[in-house]
Amino acid sequence: MRMYDLIEKKKLGQELSTEEIYHIINGYTHDEIPDYQISALLMAIYFNGMNVRERYDLTMAMRDSGDILDLSSIDGVKIDKHSTGGVGDKVTLVLGPIIASIGVPVAKMSGRGLGHTGGTIDKLEAFPGFNVSLSEEQFINQVNDIKIAVTGQSKNLAPADKKLYALRDVTATVDEISLITGSIMSKKLAAGTDAIVLDVTVGDGAFMKNKESALELAKSMVDIGKKADKKIAAILTNMDEPLGFAVGNDLEVIEAINALNGNGPEDLMEVVYELGSQMIVFSEIEKDKAKAKELMKEAVSSGRALAKFVEFIEAQGGDSSYAKDINKFKPAKYIIPVNSLTDGYVHAIKAESIGLASMSLGGGRETFEDVIDMSVGIVLNKKVGDTVKAGEALCYIHTNDEKKAKVAEEMIRKATVVSPEACDHMDLIIDIVE
Amino acid sequence: MRMYDLIEKKKLGQELSTEEIYHIINGYTHDEIPDYQISALLMAIYFNGMNVRERYDLTMAMRDSGDILDLSSIDGVKIDKHSTGGVGDKVTLVLGPIIASIGVPVAKMSGRGLGHTGGTIDKLEAFPGFNVSLSEEQFINQVNDIKIAVTGQSKNLAPADKKLYALRDVTATVDEISLITGSIMSKKLAAGTDAIVLDVTVGDGAFMKNKESALELAKSMVDIGKKADKKIAAILTNMDEPLGFAVGNDLEVIEAINALNGNGPEDLMEVVYELGSQMIVFSEIEKDKAKAKELMKEAVSSGRALAKFVEFIEAQGGDSSYAKDINKFKPAKYIIPVNSLTDGYVHAIKAESIGLASMSLGGGRETFEDVIDMSVGIVLNKKVGDTVKAGEALCYIHTNDEKKAKVAEEMIRKATVVSPEACDHMDLIIDIVE
Repeated sequence: MRMYDLIEKKKLGQELSTEEIYHIINGYTHDEIPDYQISALLMAIYFNGMNVRERYDLTMAMRDSGDILDLSSIDGVKIDKHSTGGVGDKVTLVLGPIIASIGVPVAKMSGRGLGHTGGTIDKLEAFPGFNVSLSEEQFINQVNDIKIAVTGQSKNLAPADKKLYALRDVTATVDEISLITGSIMSKKLAAGTDAIVLDVTVGDGAFMKNKESALELAKSMVDIGKKADKKIAAILTNMDEPLGFAVGNDLEVIEAINALNGNGPEDLMEVVYELGSQMIVFSEIEKDKAKAKELMKEAVSSGRALAKFVEFIEAQGGDSSYAKDINKFKPAKYIIPVNSLTDGYVHAIKAESIGLASMSLGGGRETFEDVIDMSVGIVLNKKVGDTVKAGEALCYIHTNDEKKAKVAEEMIRKATVVSPEACDHMDLIIDIVE
Repeated sequence: MRMYDLIEKKKLGQELSTEEIYHIINGYTHDEIPDYQISALLMAIYFNGMNVRERYDLTMAMRDSGDILDLSSIDGVKIDKHSTGGVGDKVTLVLGPIIASIGVPVAKMSGRGLGHTGGTIDKLEAFPGFNVSLSEEQFINQVNDIKIAVTGQSKNLAPADKKLYALRDVTATVDEISLITGSIMSKKLAAGTDAIVLDVTVGDGAFMKNKESALELAKSMVDIGKKADKKIAAILTNMDEPLGFAVGNDLEVIEAINALNGNGPEDLMEVVYELGSQMIVFSEIEKDKAKAKELMKEAVSSGRALAKFVEFIEAQGGDSSYAKDINKFKPAKYIIPVNSLTDGYVHAIKAESIGLASMSLGGGRETFEDVIDMSVGIVLNKKVGDTVKAGEALCYIHTNDEKKAKVAEEMIRKATVVSPEACDHMDLIIDIVE
């Protein structure tokens, strides 16, 4: 089998066989096929795509390129939740403890943030001593003991994806549905859960900028999950503006703790309840989604969700006193309002720019080598659809460097639109693919 | 300027600026841009193409990547002739001496053969002692003295093309009009002539398999040549069957000598006269093409063309006695006929397969490291449109190895079609683009 012929085949819009796709993925993983042939193939795939059968084979070949976790010793239906990335996305921090407190086992691998989107692992490190590198045994035991564990990726899951993603990232071949499907689903399938709930974000701050492309991706991933015999659903959620009010590591953790205390922002909670109820239904603890949502609300109002969060932080060696008293988080030196210049309605708070503004303050990474400043970020005072008066704060910049605040303020001003016409709040749940 | 953005631009079907194209070509030539980004770009160009302005910039950037010959010290209008490659193509060997004898300066850079097509430089080495590596000074002086010199590429002409071609060759991105145009025209423009006549071959043994794609390529190259202020024309010639009867190095040289003696195959001479008359018109020695053809025929019948050939071989240190007595060429050990199995008309002698059969006998190279057996090859006894009787030879295999002859015979049998219905001879001149 010559790689040249496989490139030519895809270039001409023909279907690659299962054997051919495994040949490509295995050869690339083991450095037997050079980058320059793979990048030509990736570009051919960008133009000619892959059908569902090819996508499935691509996903499975990538899954099979590394370790596959065996979670069979965890009791109950194991469910993974994955977001395609957003700004102010602290959903896992709120959702995990709530459903764990209801009895759904949460065995979650998570990652670090990059670019304008944050990562759950970074946020959990807000708790001094929190261990993000559990062994497989620790991970499984903890889920059996307290129903929730979150760890960074320790095993060698889907190494083909790591190599392919690095190449796609420098050859402008990231934004293709088959390749995105393979990348996400290979890791999800290697993570070994029984069910998967996908949060496919849509809009300015998301990878998918419009509903059509997000729906296409959601359907593609659900197709592949079903072919692989997983329970799977995808919820399309709005990411035109940041989720909740807080953007930045400590700031988002504080917002998550407030949410577990019953004071969560409405939009954040809507996403948490929608995803969580789907997970509870998959777990078979409750078959009716509306009733599952009631269970979740009850877990919050009773304090059981927060208690589970405290238990979880402690189980992984973190200092849970921070969860009990948010004043323990060391604030940034300066909190600087960005005030509206006119009266009107807020029409836009572009999520990507807000994420980038937070990054420019030191709250995010450009490369994985960068060190994050946990205390900085942006806290919105207004959301799209709100009224605002001239001189009233649109948001607050939390910074340790006044110069950086100037840059961030400029970015925020460009990202926000205030105008006299009335404007609705945004719909959070855009679509559901099952 | 980030290479990523340039790939993305072309991926989205946008136009690359002059500056951007130079950035890409210079960066790649100097190893500042990695293969994997260039191959992704090449595939994006395959799908989205380049407009005439981009093709021109690509060609000029590639030309400017290395030396540009200065032929200004050669008297008269310097004209280059280039063929896109064929089987049995000994046109330069016949054409060069004819027009040189009329006074047209022939300053030709030529290459070696690869795959199923031969190269002029290889064929000239049939004359013992012939020097294919002239210095620039020797080259120019010889053209001024005797109007004809042929040399291999000594200077560093269009090194960007060398690098790009090697990459295209392994990433299935050879067959795209803009890239082919840039590859051919960058070298032609670097070769420094005033006028260019292109022989764009069409058909089974050619790079362009059908008239439409050949016409597109011809127009593209003529567009670029005109933009670069060159006199230029492209003649589309048939390459469904081999040109002339002989395929193989010595065999083709012998056929060329016979042609200069007035005994050339009809199809070969038609191509020689068409290309040559265009070159004479460009040289301004004769403005009328029909009259130019008469001049050429007169050069052959008078013996001046052959005398020029002898002078040319001697000027480059070759043993011209071979040109005077073709029996001096050492024949292959075995000459084996391939006989027709039935009566009928010859409908096809597929050129590519005949070229590959000759290569399998040792008459061509798979890689530039291979050594050619000069004596082997195939001599057709029939051409498309001829009648043939069962048991009559379709062609003769010239070989030094009987085993190889078996393989070649099988290839030839698959490449030839004889059937009872009458069939026309092929039209040689398909179209002319000026």
